[in-house]
Amino acid sequence: MEEPVKRSIEPHKETQTTAGSRPDIPLLPGERIDDLLTQNLRIIQSRDVFSFSMDAVLLGRFASVPAKGRVLDLCTGNGVIPLLLSTRTRAQIEGVEIQERLAGMAERSVAMNGLRERITIHNADLKHFHETAGHGMYDAVTVNPPYTPLTGSDIKANEHEAIARHEIHCTLEDVVQACARMIKPGGKVSMVHRPHRLADILVLMRKYRIEPKRVRFVHPRAHMEANMVLVEGLRDGKPEMRVLPPLIVYNEDGQYCEEILTIYYGSAGKEDGHADPEKF
Amino acid sequence: MEEPVKRSIEPHKETQTTAGSRPDIPLLPGERIDDLLTQNLRIIQSRDVFSFSMDAVLLGRFASVPAKGRVLDLCTGNGVIPLLLSTRTRAQIEGVEIQERLAGMAERSVAMNGLRERITIHNADLKHFHETAGHGMYDAVTVNPPYTPLTGSDIKANEHEAIARHEIHCTLEDVVQACARMIKPGGKVSMVHRPHRLADILVLMRKYRIEPKRVRFVHPRAHMEANMVLVEGLRDGKPEMRVLPPLIVYNEDGQYCEEILTIYYGSAGKEDGHADPEKF
Repeated sequence: MEEPVKRSIEPHKETQTTAGSRPDIPLLPGERIDDLLTQNLRIIQSRDVFSFSMDAVLLGRFASVPAKGRVLDLCTGNGVIPLLLSTRTRAQIEGVEIQERLAGMAERSVAMNGLRERITIHNADLKHFHETAGHGMYDAVTVNPPYTPLTGSDIKANEHEAIARHEIHCTLEDVVQACARMIKPGGKVSMVHRPHRLADILVLMRKYRIEPKRVRFVHPRAHMEANMVLVEGLRDGKPEMRVLPPLIVYNEDGQYCEEILTIYYGSAGKEDGHADPEKF
Repeated sequence: MEEPVKRSIEPHKETQTTAGSRPDIPLLPGERIDDLLTQNLRIIQSRDVFSFSMDAVLLGRFASVPAKGRVLDLCTGNGVIPLLLSTRTRAQIEGVEIQERLAGMAERSVAMNGLRERITIHNADLKHFHETAGHGMYDAVTVNPPYTPLTGSDIKANEHEAIARHEIHCTLEDVVQACARMIKPGGKVSMVHRPHRLADILVLMRKYRIEPKRVRFVHPRAHMEANMVLVEGLRDGKPEMRVLPPLIVYNEDGQYCEEILTIYYGSAGKEDGHADPEKF
């Protein structure tokens, strides 16, 4: 699932030096603009720096978000999740990204979509964000953290991808602890990660009083092991988990399953930018 | 999944007062003999006392068992899991059951199948079994524990069913602790339970140094939430879990899926009692 959506779902690509009709928003070398398919949203990406993956798109639909209030996305990268969430809620959305280069991409994408009033990007370290933002100020927190521990793993990606994919600046425990600091009592924390870390995730969530309540596994095909897991926890919730139906990516013919297409492209008549698709 | 296999898969039923061709093995009032379908095995059941469910059959196939050595089944009930495991391993198998009435059924079923040399049933409390059996003596441990906590739940079943289904004599923590006491270093512990306890299970397994390694969710239908989970952990294992393909019980036509039929009935030519079906 590391493969970016641009290759698998074929969004419209543009080659230009400014952000479409907004000459005040420059593109840096190697950057391009991709459609966010399901909505009238566009996003700045770069093969050399960072492109979002299916993981982020699925989390953007899976996460429970309040109709209004404040939502925080940690490890926001190029801002894909705040952009997607902006179609599902009228809440104020903030993204936190440690890499200045990626935070800059995210800020320009927000501006390009005319969403500066609703989305704020912070170039900050999630381990220290509470020092300025305070504790327990958000109604929902989402996070698509780095997946790979640093234990001797061979990092082949570029520096920006490496930081986004590997636990260089934050461990899984740092991430869960940051979620716990930022979420209000009774608020929901949603995460996408690899299934092989599931025990770590559930143990850490419980340690930091985010009770796991809803889990969904993503399988490339129906007969294959899961390669992605979506988990949602409730701050100070009571123990009792639901395991949702499996989300299968490809059918037996090698085509995207209907649910995946719906998540990417939305339903007919819901492409006016005010769609409020249900979470799955 | 509480529904016993006798209703859903329709094994051959017998109404008699002794165990088939073994007049030395009496049946108590209300007891009957069911086929264990996939093998030339039969089992004593009773609607009024205890009948095994699909959960036990799936665990009997899911669990990793060594080719030889010693295997222990906790909460063995009427002995269905030891009987099923006897077709997959030449190990010595022991079952522990706290209820004298159920342990008696299990012992008579073992005798009826001529398996006294290979299966031993202990009428004992798993919380104290290590006091006589010692620590770390088993190569594999399986358990289909009571599912339901006692927190104000309304117990409608008969006394025997109630003890088998509710945490009356042992909590989930007692069960995991007992598994940890009985298993050898490097041995595998397999459990079937309800998905809503998954966080509890993984947290407790890790607490008692049984690292969760392999999980499979069972969904009644492909679009429904899981209602059963199979978990296997490795004593002193390193953290890294696999989430197997979903096991779907019924297809869209309401028929059993092929994998379920294979688990129950086995493959052609494998019904000689010496089949060694792979775990799934």
